[in-house]
Amino acid sequence: MPSSLDFLTEALRRLPGVGPKSAQRMAFHLLQHDREGASMLSRALYQAVDNVHHCALCNTFAETAVCDTCLDERRDKTLLCVVETPADQLMIEQTLTYKGLYFVLMGRLSPLDGVGPKDIHLDKLVGRAADGVVSEVVLATNFTNEGEATAHYISEMLKARGLKVSRLARGVPVGGELEYVDAGTIARAMLDRRST
Amino acid sequence: MPSSLDFLTEALRRLPGVGPKSAQRMAFHLLQHDREGASMLSRALYQAVDNVHHCALCNTFAETAVCDTCLDERRDKTLLCVVETPADQLMIEQTLTYKGLYFVLMGRLSPLDGVGPKDIHLDKLVGRAADGVVSEVVLATNFTNEGEATAHYISEMLKARGLKVSRLARGVPVGGELEYVDAGTIARAMLDRRST
Ligand SMILES: [Zn+2]
Ligand SMILES: [Zn+2]
Repeated sequence: MPSSLDFLTEALRRLPGVGPKSAQRMAFHLLQHDREGASMLSRALYQAVDNVHHCALCNTFAETAVCDTCLDERRDKTLLCVVETPADQLMIEQTLTYKGLYFVLMGRLSPLDGVGPKDIHLDKLVGRAADGVVSEVVLATNFTNEGEATAHYISEMLKARGLKVSRLARGVPVGGELEYVDAGTIARAMLDRRST
Repeated sequence: MPSSLDFLTEALRRLPGVGPKSAQRMAFHLLQHDREGASMLSRALYQAVDNVHHCALCNTFAETAVCDTCLDERRDKTLLCVVETPADQLMIEQTLTYKGLYFVLMGRLSPLDGVGPKDIHLDKLVGRAADGVVSEVVLATNFTNEGEATAHYISEMLKARGLKVSRLARGVPVGGELEYVDAGTIARAMLDRRST
């Protein structure tokens, strides 16, 4: 096999969920049927790595120092909702039940995988939540074991600093991941959120 | 979402088998955990599009005008094995039962999908097989309906030009795709190949 093709197949395996057979199928498909798609993907990767960083306030992906959501003057600055991922934030936005701001952990506590408090930016979260304007932190981590443990850890940490902390109600199915739950369920859970 | 991230998610959907959810998961994973992998994949795509073309003789992917296999002086130039894809060629190489040369169709006849004789380079195959040196063409297309129809079409076409044509024996399970068959089965089928 040409070495450029081997290199491409190897590089495609860096994508999550892509094994050797799929990587080879993808490489053949792009070179045989979609060279334009391959060039487009090459540019998109380059641009994203170059341009996408983390919002100084909410920690989500952003191309500017502070993201559009954090800059939105119509948002309720007294509410801060903590989610695991940008996808979870999008799901909550779609419910139209929340008008506050966000903090995106970009992960969850997972001691077995070596993911500790620093890896999910809890120091940044403490600074953000203690800005003197936020009056309630709504924990919207997943209702999995790791998400619940993360919520518990954050709750204890913020309550020790005198902040009011709430958790989405258990309308979300136990074991469920927000990204795959319907908007109606998340809307109800948002309305039923409880203090912790 | 930052537009670079949207663009990346959209571009990842050009990969076969990648839907909107997987594309988003891949984009987040690369930016959050593997920016080095993202840069590597960007370069690999660029290089492959730039460097990989088709061998002038056997039609497979190559970075040179003629591929290494076609240039290999130890190969039996009187035998030409026709396969659908480079992956099929690799499988046959692994059986160590074949020492001739190859022609790679880069597809199969599929009238319903609009894939006709020109799309699988049959004019190039005729020119290659009629070089005066090739004495037998071994058809090793898949034993699927489309692969069988392709073999039949090529067989009629080459026999009309006075060439000897054989087909891998049906040791390969009916409906099976070469890429997923064990090397032993393919080895037996190669030894049992029959005239058509
Ligand atoms: Zn932000
Ligand atoms: Zn060649």
